[in-house]
Amino acid sequence: MGPTMADVRAAAARIAPHAVRTPLLESAALNDLVGGRVLLKAECLQVTGSFKLRGALNTMLQLDPDERARGVVAWSSGNHALAVSRVAGLLGVHATIVMPADAPRPKLDGVRANGATLRLYDRLGESREEVGTAIAQQSGAAIVRPYDDPRVVAGQGTLGLELVQQAEERAVALDAVLCPASGGGLSAGIATAVHAEIPGTAVHTVEPAGFDDVARSLAAGRPVRNAPGGSTLCDALQAPTPGEVTFPVLQEHGVTGLVVDDDEVRAAMRTAFGVLRLVVEPGGAAALAAVLAGRVEVAGRVTAVVLSGGNVDPDLYARVITGTD
Amino acid sequence: MGPTMADVRAAAARIAPHAVRTPLLESAALNDLVGGRVLLKAECLQVTGSFKLRGALNTMLQLDPDERARGVVAWSSGNHALAVSRVAGLLGVHATIVMPADAPRPKLDGVRANGATLRLYDRLGESREEVGTAIAQQSGAAIVRPYDDPRVVAGQGTLGLELVQQAEERAVALDAVLCPASGGGLSAGIATAVHAEIPGTAVHTVEPAGFDDVARSLAAGRPVRNAPGGSTLCDALQAPTPGEVTFPVLQEHGVTGLVVDDDEVRAAMRTAFGVLRLVVEPGGAAALAAVLAGRVEVAGRVTAVVLSGGNVDPDLYARVITGTD
Repeated sequence: MGPTMADVRAAAARIAPHAVRTPLLESAALNDLVGGRVLLKAECLQVTGSFKLRGALNTMLQLDPDERARGVVAWSSGNHALAVSRVAGLLGVHATIVMPADAPRPKLDGVRANGATLRLYDRLGESREEVGTAIAQQSGAAIVRPYDDPRVVAGQGTLGLELVQQAEERAVALDAVLCPASGGGLSAGIATAVHAEIPGTAVHTVEPAGFDDVARSLAAGRPVRNAPGGSTLCDALQAPTPGEVTFPVLQEHGVTGLVVDDDEVRAAMRTAFGVLRLVVEPGGAAALAAVLAGRVEVAGRVTAVVLSGGNVDPDLYARVITGTD
Repeated sequence: MGPTMADVRAAAARIAPHAVRTPLLESAALNDLVGGRVLLKAECLQVTGSFKLRGALNTMLQLDPDERARGVVAWSSGNHALAVSRVAGLLGVHATIVMPADAPRPKLDGVRANGATLRLYDRLGESREEVGTAIAQQSGAAIVRPYDDPRVVAGQGTLGLELVQQAEERAVALDAVLCPASGGGLSAGIATAVHAEIPGTAVHTVEPAGFDDVARSLAAGRPVRNAPGGSTLCDALQAPTPGEVTFPVLQEHGVTGLVVDDDEVRAAMRTAFGVLRLVVEPGGAAALAAVLAGRVEVAGRVTAVVLSGGNVDPDLYARVITGTD
């Protein structure tokens, strides 16, 4: 059910005119800090500030004229919403976006600015899938899923393909790749692309404590759900369970899951601010947090870390970098 | 007295093992905002967080063994200090750094962490040149000047060379380059490199109001000084007058000077945070501020903007992005 490497390559060609080939950065100061080489895939520099643009582009560029005319609907904690609304604007397609009422302000403002119709929902009392599916049934709009669609996974996989190419360009052999995970679309795409090119590379997902469904599902060998009612700083990493498309891909590729807590995420955001000079949102900093917290061995190795997004409320960011949150 | 293009090319080869080829970024959202193409040279991603590493590397890698043994001395508001102390650590050379007591905390902390001897001075009551020169005379240390040295200018010129190469790689013709200016080392280096490759490109310096000595000197045709006692958010852009080496280079290349105020700098830092997801310090945001404030025509043109540094106190940064400064 997951995409093939050919799908990922086709996606890369399809999205190239509209997406940024985000830089693979290396910081001597960060390397000194952790005692190994860390390559940073700075996806916070992507159009709309996260990797979600890739999957949205690859999916929506494949809609036929009839589908485009009926519009799209998507549900998202924010980054997928920003991506779908941006691509909709680009293609002249109407988008309805279902977002939690407590989503970060820049994400809500950005979706409105992109011209989408916003439908807010109560994250604890309503199901976003049900709200979005009802809109699709009434309007005939196509659903652009946040992760559980092979077109989306192939789009996110283009990040992994770039990572491999950029490592080759600097003649570096990757030992491991770490990426933040929510529904598993990014990690499934990266595993597909990286293992097609460098089969031995370790791929790890990183999730916030309390939302470690991917890690526990991989360990259990079957999908498990997060306990309801938890909270995390990582607004982008709150999916309740791995996807039906993504989970088998993660299993097949021997991906293993790591977990970080909110304080470790805050420390990673501060390091991104002060050492890397990159604005990284909480969820986007989870993989860096795992490296800084010593969840994986990096000494004497080359570890790629995906900084997956940079859309963060200024008030929250200010509290994190000044140590008052 | 300024460096030749051959000097810039030699500098590029010399510093390559130790410096980052910083990415040239483009943001669709920023282009939409200003109605033209803006290419961002993200030098805040350089080692030590500013372009100053380039000049320090090019100068210090040319010291002979006797000079290295006697150590170096430098004066700086911060970024040159970070660069010289980092390169000194790399080469195993002792560095004494003369810095204002009110320099931003991350700059003071960084210089200490790099193992340099710090000599603080009172920016209003003492002359940093006199303090530094006395240390050099007593110790025999070599002075690594912040801008008024052809080796430093050639080093900063490597940024201009990369800019030209990176524009070529994406088949873009540059109409203008804007860079922040203090003593004129970066702008003189960029003008040298860019005009050697693309003679017709407009080069503009950007300075903060009250510290616009370069703009006024270029307009007057002779070096003039800033009135004493002024203040600016841009701690890195406070040189009192253009350099003896740099000013004739800027004149020869027909560079013209633009001026921005502190509020325009704050707005540029906020745009870098929210739209570009880059941490840019006040002085590093001056050229972006000029574009956002409409100081140059960008519609229908390609404008390169140098984001020259990203070393900013977290408390100040928090106030700027939340609009409370």
